[in-house]
Amino acid sequence: MTNPALQIALAYHRAWTGKDLDLALTYLADEVVCDAPAGRIVGIEAYRDFLAPFAERLLISVEMIAAFGDDSTAVLVYDTETIPAKSAPAAECVTVRDGKIVYNRFVFDRTPFDEFRRRQEPARP
Amino acid sequence: MTNPALQIALAYHRAWTGKDLDLALTYLADEVVCDAPAGRIVGIEAYRDFLAPFAERLLISVEMIAAFGDDSTAVLVYDTETIPAKSAPAAECVTVRDGKIVYNRFVFDRTPFDEFRRRQEPARP
Repeated sequence: MTNPALQIALAYHRAWTGKDLDLALTYLADEVVCDAPAGRIVGIEAYRDFLAPFAERLLISVEMIAAFGDDSTAVLVYDTETIPAKSAPAAECVTVRDGKIVYNRFVFDRTPFDEFRRRQEPARP
Repeated sequence: MTNPALQIALAYHRAWTGKDLDLALTYLADEVVCDAPAGRIVGIEAYRDFLAPFAERLLISVEMIAAFGDDSTAVLVYDTETIPAKSAPAAECVTVRDGKIVYNRFVFDRTPFDEFRRRQEPARP
């Protein structure tokens, strides 16, 4: 296997987009660091809190666009259909060490999700 | 060379982030299609209009995070330092045909750029 980081990234991604967060988190190091659009997330429980609302409430389906990797790094680019947006693509660029994801640079556009959240809020005078 | 798409993607990226849009556009097919956060861009002139404000006015520096590719597809993940945001990462996933980029899925967070634009607008009562 020439790209172990990719295998781990794909297994993690398949789990969380399949709404099995417990399984997804088994691919992460306890002290995982994720740089996401809204800021840095540190630790596996914060990571769960970050992914759970999206995976459990907003995600409808996923389509992988590209997946590449080598010994220590993997990149996944995929589109998602979500309740806020028919197309909400994302990229995850993960670093793997000792079989676990220790770092993720998570890129997506917050705009449709922020607009959706504003629409859900009660109208203010 | 086992990953020609990556070589072309990197040359295009080096050109546009070096603010040489004329050179960058030589790597694109005339009828290039780009799915960007704000919608679909079709054709090389529209692509120039999309990139130019960012490359020429907002971009300070670029740091490549990961770059992978094969015969026809390449993915670049990179961070940018910009006037609106110290860290504004992006991913470009390009399809190459006959030596030109024919498609790009361009992922980034619009939020800091929209906020910057709003701050630049004259205050309204």
